[in-house]
Amino acid sequence: MNHKPDFIISGAGLVGSILGLRLAQRGFRVKLFESRPDMRLNAISAGRSINLALSDRGIRSLRMVGLGDELLTHAVPMQGRMVHSMSGELQFQPYSERPGECINSISRRTLNVILMDALEKIQPGSIEFDTRLSSCDPETGSFIFEKRDERNIVVDNIPMLATDGANSVARKSLMNISAQIRFNYSQVFQNYGYKELTIPPGEGGSFRIDKNALHIWPRGHFMMIALPNPDATFTATLFIPYEGKDSFASLTDEGSVEKYFETFFRDAIPCLPDLKKEFFENPTGHLYTVKCHPWYYQDKLLLLGDAAHAIIPFYGQGMNCGFEDVFVLDQLLDQGLTGEQLFSRFTELRKINSDAIADLAEDNFVEMRDKVGDPLFQRKRQLENRLEKFDPTYFSKYALVTFRPDVSYHHAMTLGRMQDDLLMDICRKKETIADSELPGILEQLRSLSGQLSV
Amino acid sequence: MNHKPDFIISGAGLVGSILGLRLAQRGFRVKLFESRPDMRLNAISAGRSINLALSDRGIRSLRMVGLGDELLTHAVPMQGRMVHSMSGELQFQPYSERPGECINSISRRTLNVILMDALEKIQPGSIEFDTRLSSCDPETGSFIFEKRDERNIVVDNIPMLATDGANSVARKSLMNISAQIRFNYSQVFQNYGYKELTIPPGEGGSFRIDKNALHIWPRGHFMMIALPNPDATFTATLFIPYEGKDSFASLTDEGSVEKYFETFFRDAIPCLPDLKKEFFENPTGHLYTVKCHPWYYQDKLLLLGDAAHAIIPFYGQGMNCGFEDVFVLDQLLDQGLTGEQLFSRFTELRKINSDAIADLAEDNFVEMRDKVGDPLFQRKRQLENRLEKFDPTYFSKYALVTFRPDVSYHHAMTLGRMQDDLLMDICRKKETIADSELPGILEQLRSLSGQLSV
Repeated sequence: MNHKPDFIISGAGLVGSILGLRLAQRGFRVKLFESRPDMRLNAISAGRSINLALSDRGIRSLRMVGLGDELLTHAVPMQGRMVHSMSGELQFQPYSERPGECINSISRRTLNVILMDALEKIQPGSIEFDTRLSSCDPETGSFIFEKRDERNIVVDNIPMLATDGANSVARKSLMNISAQIRFNYSQVFQNYGYKELTIPPGEGGSFRIDKNALHIWPRGHFMMIALPNPDATFTATLFIPYEGKDSFASLTDEGSVEKYFETFFRDAIPCLPDLKKEFFENPTGHLYTVKCHPWYYQDKLLLLGDAAHAIIPFYGQGMNCGFEDVFVLDQLLDQGLTGEQLFSRFTELRKINSDAIADLAEDNFVEMRDKVGDPLFQRKRQLENRLEKFDPTYFSKYALVTFRPDVSYHHAMTLGRMQDDLLMDICRKKETIADSELPGILEQLRSLSGQLSV
Repeated sequence: MNHKPDFIISGAGLVGSILGLRLAQRGFRVKLFESRPDMRLNAISAGRSINLALSDRGIRSLRMVGLGDELLTHAVPMQGRMVHSMSGELQFQPYSERPGECINSISRRTLNVILMDALEKIQPGSIEFDTRLSSCDPETGSFIFEKRDERNIVVDNIPMLATDGANSVARKSLMNISAQIRFNYSQVFQNYGYKELTIPPGEGGSFRIDKNALHIWPRGHFMMIALPNPDATFTATLFIPYEGKDSFASLTDEGSVEKYFETFFRDAIPCLPDLKKEFFENPTGHLYTVKCHPWYYQDKLLLLGDAAHAIIPFYGQGMNCGFEDVFVLDQLLDQGLTGEQLFSRFTELRKINSDAIADLAEDNFVEMRDKVGDPLFQRKRQLENRLEKFDPTYFSKYALVTFRPDVSYHHAMTLGRMQDDLLMDICRKKETIADSELPGILEQLRSLSGQLSV
């Protein structure tokens, strides 16, 4: 390398790219290494999660790098959940009653390409593709990257920011020195896999189902969801158990898949012309949560994004949380922190919050596949909507997590759970709530906030 | 290998040795590989936990292999905890009021040597020393062991039972295929390290402190313990935090260690003539819990003992739990199980129980370093002793875990915690309990048992 970079970044996925861009904007020299080929020259592989729900935490980070408005033009706003019952009835559950509060379906590829382009506009050629982290020794600060042609690039004494994803090689190097750093680690797999399926455009390039919603087919112990894309397709994802009743284990041939869909997702069948082909050709994805601590080694290595905290996708916050990592790191740079102090303070601030969103995402899997179809839960959700309409300064747990980047994930979880308990209690006791009761309920909700120190 | 073994065993520590012995007794041909040299020819390394508390679960397994009585002759019975206060006052807390219920301090070395000798008496030369598992591929069933002279021993298509300890190489090979087997894993470090110290014999080869007790110096957020050895020495172990108040971080020179002991362990100073030397020369041990699942891959690999479930030492059950693994495996062999069915059923039966003892051990660390010195806890413990004396069919949580191998760890934990809650409640409300109240309390305790299905 001719000019020695200030930081190397392992992984030019979403978090690595926005991180590189932000550091370049701040005047740091960065070098990114990405194991995959340049996606700007290649098609993205099938079955890899191709659209994502961008919400306010992610948007805040994109605004920080000056790309918020541009990226939103590529997104499809989703105003709420469209719940599909077994019999094909639709029920719309808005995410919020406040204007402008929605989540945005956006293509992973579009996002990543725009971020990489913006980075390379400032520092041309700063991303090296087809180059994987092959050896990582945090104790000596020696990192070796291997090109596809087996040439090695050896990096010494340059701090590495590792955004190499849920299966992070850098994180494994911390595992190798577990005893020295007392590395706490957990990985927990769901007993569920997922399969992506495509809903193509309808006649004349129209959206086949409501464009501005996240569609859910909740079926108790499994579910399907679908997110819109700007090209009038939807990406549907089926989440089902590996084993047991109605599981992957029982879906072994086209006949069984057909019967499964006829039983559980009848209204979706006309939308999925390639169902049987895709079901057997697309890979089955796994769902797992990774937590670890510490995220850094001295001033030599820091994990960010999924490398530090891989979560399951059911709060639509994986990318948003990773982007928020970069926002927080940027604030700490503003405060003048450097080296180990920067890495340690970053870990301290983010660990508690990434743990919280990991737990919320696990809770929400149960909510999405089961509770959204449950009458008591629906009454509670409707009450929440009425409360938010009556008093827009009240924010549900979902709204705190999704629309309030100024509230930490941990606070959103703690307060949100208290709110949920209270409202479920009220809805359990009373079938109908009069408008005149709303102020009293709001007062109770506000008193919860007082019980917590923000 | 001339005769192809039925099983290879990686690790000839305590669990590997008793496992090999039992399988040999059942007529299986076994081959053990042990990375360390033959301890029968070498001294054990300093600072490695040198004595252990053998209790009824472990004794049951030793009786299974016909060595229970022989080994107990090498042990020193400990009838209870001898609590040393700051001012040097002693309080004895018996483990049980039933005759014969005690735990037994035994040397790791003595145990291991007797087990290895018994195995090699049946199958001479079945343990290969200085031979470490260097490559482990459960998918192909190919295992490579490396001798100290770098010669390789390649093992193909022989099931491996891995008893290679808390830092198991075999377990790491399951980590490498995490996604395929959905391998759940966690490692959690305590913020505490430990240091072993020696209490030599007193005048005329006498025991310097009470021989038949486990000595504890509880000091709230840290503690020291000491276990007797048959040669009239005690092995003392200091458990203190790495950082913060009264931590390793503050014990940087001989002066600070001296002051620390004068403040907190004044009565122990005359017993520790080599304190300062040992403190700085002996290694600092780490304390961590490992949980994982599944413990097996097809019919090719099974983890047992610490390789499957490493726990912290505060219930004195690490070895006892590992020995119980072998007892349960033996029962499953009696039932005619083989191959993957054997491994899967073993995992199912043992996982819930090893999780339970892991959690109990973490709870007990708090109890030992803090609660044993607390007046409320002491009243509760005294009440428990009175109850056990009044009605010997009542078993405290400690007694269920320690003296009742017929009760699973999981049941002992669940029932024991309910008992603890009830008794703490009673002691919180009343300072003194009359004898006439004992039958009523026992009835309440018995009703807890009814709430659980054993």
